Amino acid sequence: MEYINNIIDELQNAELFNLIEFLGTVAFAISGIRLASAKRFDWFGAIVVGFVTAIGGGTMRDLLLGVTPFWMLSSAYIWGTVLAFLIVLFFRKFLVHLNNTIFWFDCIGLGLFVVVGYEKSLALGYHYWVCIFMGLITGIVGSIIRDILINEIPIIFTQELYAIACIIGGIVFTICVMFNTDMFVAEIATAFTIIIVRFFATKFSIKLPILKGDD
Amino acid sequence: MEYINNIIDELQNAELFNLIEFLGTVAFAISGIRLASAKRFDWFGAIVVGFVTAIGGGTMRDLLLGVTPFWMLSSAYIWGTVLAFLIVLFFRKFLVHLNNTIFWFDCIGLGLFVVVGYEKSLALGYHYWVCIFMGLITGIVGSIIRDILINEIPIIFTQELYAIACIIGGIVFTICVMFNTDMFVAEIATAFTIIIVRFFATKFSIKLPILKGDD
Amino acid sequence: MEYINNIIDELQNAELFNLIEFLGTVAFAISGIRLASAKRFDWFGAIVVGFVTAIGGGTMRDLLLGVTPFWMLSSAYIWGTVLAFLIVLFFRKFLVHLNNTIFWFDCIGLGLFVVVGYEKSLALGYHYWVCIFMGLITGIVGSIIRDILINEIPIIFTQELYAIACIIGGIVFTICVMFNTDMFVAEIATAFTIIIVRFFATKFSIKLPILKGDD
Repeated sequence: MEYINNIIDELQNAELFNLIEFLGTVAFAISGIRLASAKRFDWFGAIVVGFVTAIGGGTMRDLLLGVTPFWMLSSAYIWGTVLAFLIVLFFRKFLVHLNNTIFWFDCIGLGLFVVVGYEKSLALGYHYWVCIFMGLITGIVGSIIRDILINEIPIIFTQELYAIACIIGGIVFTICVMFNTDMFVAEIATAFTIIIVRFFATKFSIKLPILKGDD
Repeated sequence: MEYINNIIDELQNAELFNLIEFLGTVAFAISGIRLASAKRFDWFGAIVVGFVTAIGGGTMRDLLLGVTPFWMLSSAYIWGTVLAFLIVLFFRKFLVHLNNTIFWFDCIGLGLFVVVGYEKSLALGYHYWVCIFMGLITGIVGSIIRDILINEIPIIFTQELYAIACIIGGIVFTICVMFNTDMFVAEIATAFTIIIVRFFATKFSIKLPILKGDD
Repeated sequence: MEYINNIIDELQNAELFNLIEFLGTVAFAISGIRLASAKRFDWFGAIVVGFVTAIGGGTMRDLLLGVTPFWMLSSAYIWGTVLAFLIVLFFRKFLVHLNNTIFWFDCIGLGLFVVVGYEKSLALGYHYWVCIFMGLITGIVGSIIRDILINEIPIIFTQELYAIACIIGGIVFTICVMFNTDMFVAEIATAFTIIIVRFFATKFSIKLPILKGDD
């Protein structure tokens, strides 16, 4: 356990990790703010939706784990959201050409969010399946709350292989931990798996089957 | 207090109780999965909605009480949801003929959920009215979140005498506790009351009055 | 810190404060119940929506702060909601003529809710920006959940300068604390600022700009 805690401490001090997490936060927030603007939200509403998209998953995870929500310990996430808002406000037309770049930040952010969620649960002594679950929650709940706020059915339930990527990533992490892999290797393998699965699912429009209704 | 704790321990070891709670979970999950399939959710979306319907109330209760959400301590609830999904997937057409059976599981599940919610709050030393409230929350919040996720107005607010059954059950439990009834008798009386009220309300389409608008 | 706690204790014992908080709760609940009745909710549904409107913000704040939700410690908030329900039920037609009075209770309630949220976070040792945030959450989350339950886009995101009033109020409180102002003065200044901003924003229909979409 101490071993894991040390790794987490190290990791959170790592500048690269911080930078990527910040970029992931900004990418998630941009997705929320753009959807809010399509619904003609005002500036405040757009910022709230962006913020909730970025921190909703980690907040739900921290509430379930019974720890202080991560964003209450550092104002970086608020500034990341404000930055995302300014980007959408001033570079709206330019942003369309950046869709590809934003998609990559979003993928990498997702990979990292799942890793953080998994490790935090592991460090608190939870079973592997709870850790996989918390990784998943960290990755997807922000976008679910975003879609509830803009009064749409969560897109994740009907159109994207987003969640499966998080679950597969969690399984990869579990296998690494079971085989006592170096923690850094486990993190890279997990994040990489999620990014790859999400990339190919998007590129080839791979979707889960629809559950047929009762008619 | 110790007395109550002992009862709860005994109860949770009771195989019959576990079996019925499992069946209640499956029945709640089936209701969520069927509604999700009517909205053309994919497999993952349907499982999430089923899971949230089954565990949403107890999770809200545990967050409010400040204890670890119950389903993080046992994977039975996830397997119950997966089972519910498989039932809907493979026996969809057959399920219509089972509506009556599922309704009974759902009623019994509701009765048990309220009992569990009440007892957990009582064991934590809360006032009777908080216990009644927590029983109610355990019983109804899952279906409220389910309806939010499928983007509908919660059916419980407009059409069913579902919630009143939970409140009456909670009052019965309170009376039993006040009169120092044997705890097992209190549980049976509570669950039985809820099942009866819900059964007759459904059979005779008894509804609460609509609150007239301002026009 | 002890100083702040003393102030809070004193304050919560103050009868005037209690009375105003109660009136604020009733005003918030009335807004929820009227919107629910416009959607043809039944009596139970209307009471739930009223209650959630009144206590939703403080509950979210308390869950994030990791303390027991305030309304579980006193049944006053439930009775306030029941009172609000009875008022809407019996004085529906008369209520239209009271819109002005209700608006004032609502404004004053908002001012007080923000003050309570700010002080509670300050007493728990959080940074100023977290306190401003918690004041905001206390003020607005109830109405967001209300609008989700009636299946509408939260009105606060598109039409009102409600949230900005809470933020400006939080900044005023922060400035007061930084200058070591008497706590009572800080509270009055904060609540007064919020009421004034909200009043003028409503009177002159001042709104935030809409964030233009991608088209």
